[in-house]
Amino acid sequence: MTAIYLDNNATTRTDPSVVEAMLPYFSESFGNASSAHSFGASVGEAVKAARQQLQALLGAAHDHEIIYTSGGTESDNAAILSALEAMPDRNEIVTSKVEHPAILSLCEHLEKTGRAKVHFIGVDKLGQLDIEAYRAALSDKVAIVSLMWANNETGTIFPIEGLAELAKQHGALFHTDAVQAAGKTSIVLKDSAIDMLSLSGHKLHGPKGIGALYVKKGVRFKPLIRGGHQERARRGGTENVPAIIGLGKAAELALAHMAEEQGRVKEMRDRLEKAVLQRVPNCLVNGDRNDRLPNTLNLAFEYVESEAILLHLNRAGVAASSGSACTSGSMEPSHVLKAMEVPEAALHGAVRFSFSRDNQASDVDRVIETLPPIVEKLREMSPFWADAEKKTNDKPVFA
Amino acid sequence: MTAIYLDNNATTRTDPSVVEAMLPYFSESFGNASSAHSFGASVGEAVKAARQQLQALLGAAHDHEIIYTSGGTESDNAAILSALEAMPDRNEIVTSKVEHPAILSLCEHLEKTGRAKVHFIGVDKLGQLDIEAYRAALSDKVAIVSLMWANNETGTIFPIEGLAELAKQHGALFHTDAVQAAGKTSIVLKDSAIDMLSLSGHKLHGPKGIGALYVKKGVRFKPLIRGGHQERARRGGTENVPAIIGLGKAAELALAHMAEEQGRVKEMRDRLEKAVLQRVPNCLVNGDRNDRLPNTLNLAFEYVESEAILLHLNRAGVAASSGSACTSGSMEPSHVLKAMEVPEAALHGAVRFSFSRDNQASDVDRVIETLPPIVEKLREMSPFWADAEKKTNDKPVFA
Repeated sequence: MTAIYLDNNATTRTDPSVVEAMLPYFSESFGNASSAHSFGASVGEAVKAARQQLQALLGAAHDHEIIYTSGGTESDNAAILSALEAMPDRNEIVTSKVEHPAILSLCEHLEKTGRAKVHFIGVDKLGQLDIEAYRAALSDKVAIVSLMWANNETGTIFPIEGLAELAKQHGALFHTDAVQAAGKTSIVLKDSAIDMLSLSGHKLHGPKGIGALYVKKGVRFKPLIRGGHQERARRGGTENVPAIIGLGKAAELALAHMAEEQGRVKEMRDRLEKAVLQRVPNCLVNGDRNDRLPNTLNLAFEYVESEAILLHLNRAGVAASSGSACTSGSMEPSHVLKAMEVPEAALHGAVRFSFSRDNQASDVDRVIETLPPIVEKLREMSPFWADAEKKTNDKPVFA
Repeated sequence: MTAIYLDNNATTRTDPSVVEAMLPYFSESFGNASSAHSFGASVGEAVKAARQQLQALLGAAHDHEIIYTSGGTESDNAAILSALEAMPDRNEIVTSKVEHPAILSLCEHLEKTGRAKVHFIGVDKLGQLDIEAYRAALSDKVAIVSLMWANNETGTIFPIEGLAELAKQHGALFHTDAVQAAGKTSIVLKDSAIDMLSLSGHKLHGPKGIGALYVKKGVRFKPLIRGGHQERARRGGTENVPAIIGLGKAAELALAHMAEEQGRVKEMRDRLEKAVLQRVPNCLVNGDRNDRLPNTLNLAFEYVESEAILLHLNRAGVAASSGSACTSGSMEPSHVLKAMEVPEAALHGAVRFSFSRDNQASDVDRVIETLPPIVEKLREMSPFWADAEKKTNDKPVFA
């Protein structure tokens, strides 16, 4: 029995054609892209071509607006810290309570050490930003707004272009963590109010250890990592050539597969959602079903521990997760679901299924077959469920 | 005619067996190492094994003393910035004038922005540290000393263990940039006074985009990149699994080839040095010939521009460089050679040949054949040479 991978928001399989594109740059064209001799020159050209592939995915006006980094977390950190340094007369940050730890833990640290005042804006039950609170937090003291394009746990998509325009009215820089959005939804930065955008290679079938920070032409940028003059002196360190080539190829493939993401992938996700809601009582969908990534399904099963469900699913050959891999190991309920005020009975029973173009219809069949009995069995052992069952008439809360 | 690569201090060819070790982690065992399910668990084990391979190369006491980073530059930046944050009552840095840009440009920035006072210690004509000036700069105001183990341009090796002990007497943290030393010379950190050490994968036949920062157990560390709890909460961001596996393999190979580095590689370097000094007049060796990396040869040809030599060498299929790839593109003479007070006539004519275990004896033959006529031809066109020739009696300055 082959294991089924439904944790594509944690990481994706590197597309074999991405690996193929990278391979010559390890042991054949292995030169330092900054070297003047023949070993370096050819590599420099390939790096430029890859930058253009990424430019196309982002709909950016210029290829030099892209700075290669080691991944989404570095990009996020670099964006926030750059803004604080570039705008010394402003020391406030506006972000949301549902951001990725790459933003949240940095912001918490900056607040704790007195380097910035941070506004953590709340969300509603669907995970959508509290726009009134957002407007109220904006002022000419805000150096940067950082809001994610799409949530990694629930898939909820923020109306990011509009949010960026509001920030601009106060002269604040606007950054978006698009790690989950890139490759899954259309992004056109060219005429947007977005100043900076983070993405990560391994979330879109590219390699791990590579990411990018888009910095709009004209936006002042202060490097997080200082060294040589790589990336137009905006990010020191020898260019990670094979990974850059791989990210370029992955960007090209993501563009080519965009319709599939919104089509076949979304259909698989929707079929799983519908089937589970029909078969399992007391099950909720976390997230905004009207504005959500096409690949993400976050289900909360009342009166069951998500870790128990995941363990049983794993034994049955299905890999899913309870939320961010970056917070796994902690027994705390998800900060995202807490911010959405998911009811206590459901808060600890959330399971995220995240699809990709690597999945097949048969994967959905297997989960539909496997999951309901697991939940049923676990609930049979739960005293809370026995109590709850008496009160409900066995109807799903949602759907 | 195959091109000959003698720029191994800029980057090395990734060993094919390193690539082979990495390959399964792209599209087969592609899980997120922090994920709880089966796709993550097996990967977590492999990452641990790789950490132990690196531990062995460094002679470190514990595998958890190693933090994976995106490369040498990030490691260097992280070490310095961590020390300033971890020791808020100290705001001075001691470093040398011949460090890599990863240290120098950060230190210059910290000084310029008033975040630290930096002592840039000079060197003598061999590139060895001015010990008296070093002692004088040490005080209880120094948060961190950062001195490179071996110089990337000249190969000069600092007596790093002793320098670390001096720093400890003043309670300062001691960091060494061992990017060029690792894999070329024996390193045993276990009972040393070294608190932190940087290395880079691609300088020792590992992949680009991966490096490590050793942080001795008990040393307080403040992360440069904040996010998830990866690397024991010392470096956020999804683990770059294939590159980590590759670095582990590269470390294992480096240990296995250490004797070859000090034997066959050194012999090639020494033979080239001897032959060029015999054949080319007014040629100097830059660096400390008694305490130097076995693979590095920095030759200065008086009254010739190094860029011209490199151009002709490149046309003849020989790749070398004038110094750091991280400073290439700039027409400024090397900051390392300036600090060594290399005479004006030779300052602009430095060429670095850096070997590795990938080189063969025939590579040396080719350079011995190619290089002297190039220098001779270029000198024929130089008015300075005509003047100089009258004054000398054609004897090499060195050897």
